[in-house]
Amino acid sequence: MRALFFDGSAARVVDHPEPVAGEGMAVIRVSLAGVCRTDLELVKGYMGFRGVLGHEFVGVVIAGPDEWKGARVVGEINFACGTCDLCQRGLGRHCPTRRVMGILHADGAFAELVAVPVANLHRVPDNVPDDAAVFTEPLAAAFEILEQVRVQPGLSCVVLGDGKLGLLVAQVLHGAGARVLAVGKHESKLGILRRRGIDTVCVDQWQGVRADLVAETTGTANGLATAIAALRPRGTLVLKSTVAVGAEINLAPLVINEITVVGSRCGPFAPALQALAQQSIDVRSLICARVPLNHADEGLHLAAQPGVLKVLIENDGQQR
Amino acid sequence: MRALFFDGSAARVVDHPEPVAGEGMAVIRVSLAGVCRTDLELVKGYMGFRGVLGHEFVGVVIAGPDEWKGARVVGEINFACGTCDLCQRGLGRHCPTRRVMGILHADGAFAELVAVPVANLHRVPDNVPDDAAVFTEPLAAAFEILEQVRVQPGLSCVVLGDGKLGLLVAQVLHGAGARVLAVGKHESKLGILRRRGIDTVCVDQWQGVRADLVAETTGTANGLATAIAALRPRGTLVLKSTVAVGAEINLAPLVINEITVVGSRCGPFAPALQALAQQSIDVRSLICARVPLNHADEGLHLAAQPGVLKVLIENDGQQR
Repeated sequence: MRALFFDGSAARVVDHPEPVAGEGMAVIRVSLAGVCRTDLELVKGYMGFRGVLGHEFVGVVIAGPDEWKGARVVGEINFACGTCDLCQRGLGRHCPTRRVMGILHADGAFAELVAVPVANLHRVPDNVPDDAAVFTEPLAAAFEILEQVRVQPGLSCVVLGDGKLGLLVAQVLHGAGARVLAVGKHESKLGILRRRGIDTVCVDQWQGVRADLVAETTGTANGLATAIAALRPRGTLVLKSTVAVGAEINLAPLVINEITVVGSRCGPFAPALQALAQQSIDVRSLICARVPLNHADEGLHLAAQPGVLKVLIENDGQQR
Repeated sequence: MRALFFDGSAARVVDHPEPVAGEGMAVIRVSLAGVCRTDLELVKGYMGFRGVLGHEFVGVVIAGPDEWKGARVVGEINFACGTCDLCQRGLGRHCPTRRVMGILHADGAFAELVAVPVANLHRVPDNVPDDAAVFTEPLAAAFEILEQVRVQPGLSCVVLGDGKLGLLVAQVLHGAGARVLAVGKHESKLGILRRRGIDTVCVDQWQGVRADLVAETTGTANGLATAIAALRPRGTLVLKSTVAVGAEINLAPLVINEITVVGSRCGPFAPALQALAQQSIDVRSLICARVPLNHADEGLHLAAQPGVLKVLIENDGQQR
C-alpha cells in the first residue's frame, strides 16, 4: 500500500507492507487524515520517530472483529497495555508502555490502511461528515481542558494563539460557558471565532487582562511569558503545546502570583464526537486544503507554511 | 534606632528613624528575627528593594491599640489594602497594591522596632518560645501547600532540597499523613528529618520514583528538571522558590505527562502557630547561629555560606 514514511531524514510516499489485524486489532481503510503540528515536529526529529506518520484520521473498518466490520470510525492514538496501574485507573493515555499512532513505535494514518486496537475505536455518528470527523482527535485534545480544570460559566478565559488548536480550544471553552477572549495575529482566523460569537483581539492591540484562565497554544517562550502576565493571582495556565522546549523562562511571577500550570495533551473522544454531531463547534472552516495521499509529502510542506490551518490527506484510492 | 538598611549597594547597620504607629498600625519591639534566602536575593538586587531588611520576626507590641499593647506577636508580611476585589475574597496576600515587610515598599524587622498593620498580627501562645515563634512565617509558607493541594494520607511525596524551607515542607507534609521522601545533599540536615521518622536519601544515591507530589525547594533549574522527572503522569509539582529565574527548561515532559505545577509563596499563620504550640514540627534544630543586631550585616554574610541553616538576628537592647 502507499504510505507517507519518515525514515529519519525525509518523509516520502513509499510502498509499505499492509498492516494485518492481530489479536484485539482492527484494520481501517483511511478516508481522510489531518496534518498536525506534531507531524511537522516529528520530521524535524522530535521523539526520534521512524515509520508511517499521521494520527488524525477517519476511515472504515475492513478487518477485525465482525461487529466492527464496515463501521465508519475514528481512533484514539494511545495504544495502552490495558493492565498496568495507570490503565486500571482509566489513565491509559499515560500508560508507560504505550505506543502512539504515528508518533511512537506504531505506524500512522497517512496511508491507505492503518491498524488500531479495537479498544481505541469510536463509531462516527451518521450526521458527522468525514471532513468534520477527521477533527475528532484534535478536538478531543481541546476537550481535555474540561477534564482537568473546572470551567464554570462566566470564567474569564484568554486563549493565546489562533492556530488550529487555539481555534478549537476557544470554541470548547466558549461552549462550556466561559467568557473567552481569543488573542491572535491573523484577522481571517480570528474571524472564524467571531462568527461563533467569541471576542477576539489582535495581539498587537491587546492591553492584557487579569484572566482566571489562560490557554497557551502558541508553543513559544514568548507566549508562555505573555500567558503568565495575563493571569490574575491564583489563576490557571493551561499549557497545550509540546513545542516550547528549552525555553528560557522567568518562573518568579509564577511563584509570587501562585499560578497553577496544567500540562494538557490528548483528550476524550466522546464529548468531541458529541459536539461534532451537535454542530456546536465549527471545524470545517479550518480546512485549508485537501491533498491526495500520493502527494502527502507536499501536504506536510504546505501545512508548515505560515497562516495555513488544517491540511487534509485524502485517500483517493488511486495507485501510486 | 539601629536597623539593617539596604541602600541598593550594601546592607549596613545604621541609625534609622523610629517607626510611628499610624492608623491601624502597631509598633513592635523586635526580639528575634530570622534571615531568609529572600533576604540574600534582595541584597543582590531582587525586587529593587531599598530599606530595612527582614520579614521573619517575633516581638512585643509597644504602641498601637490598647488591646494589643504588651502582646507577644508575630506578623504576616503582606500589608494589603483590605478593600480590593482580591482582599474581599480573602486573598490579601495577593493584593495588587500590597506592601511587603522588608521586601516591597515597607521597612522590615532587622531593627529595634518595626511597624505592622494590626490586622497582620497574631498572638504567640505562651508555650512557644521566641526562638520557635520566629519560624512562624517560613513555616506558614510550608503550610501554604496544604491550602493549595489536597494532601491525603498515604500520598507519595518527594521533597527536593534540604535547606530551611525543604526541612519545614517535609515535616508539614509528613504531619499531614503523606509518605515523604526527602532528597538532599547534607547528612546532618537530613538527620533532623530522620529523627522525626521521615525517610531521606542523598541525591547522589537516589534512583528516582514516580511520586504523586514533588515539592521543589532547591530553586535551581536542575532541581526543576529532576522534579518533573520524579513525578508520575498527572502528578503535582509544587514550586516553592522564586530563585529559579531565567532558567532554560524543557517543558515537553510537563505537557506529555500532564503535570500540574503549583506556584506557592506565603501561607497561613494560624496552622503554623498551632503546630509550634503542639511541638509537632521541629524548628529549633534548624538554628545555626544567633547574631546581635549590631552585627546583622555579618549575620547575612554567614547565612549565605554553604550548609548554614537558620541565622537569627537578636535585638539585645544594646546601643550601637
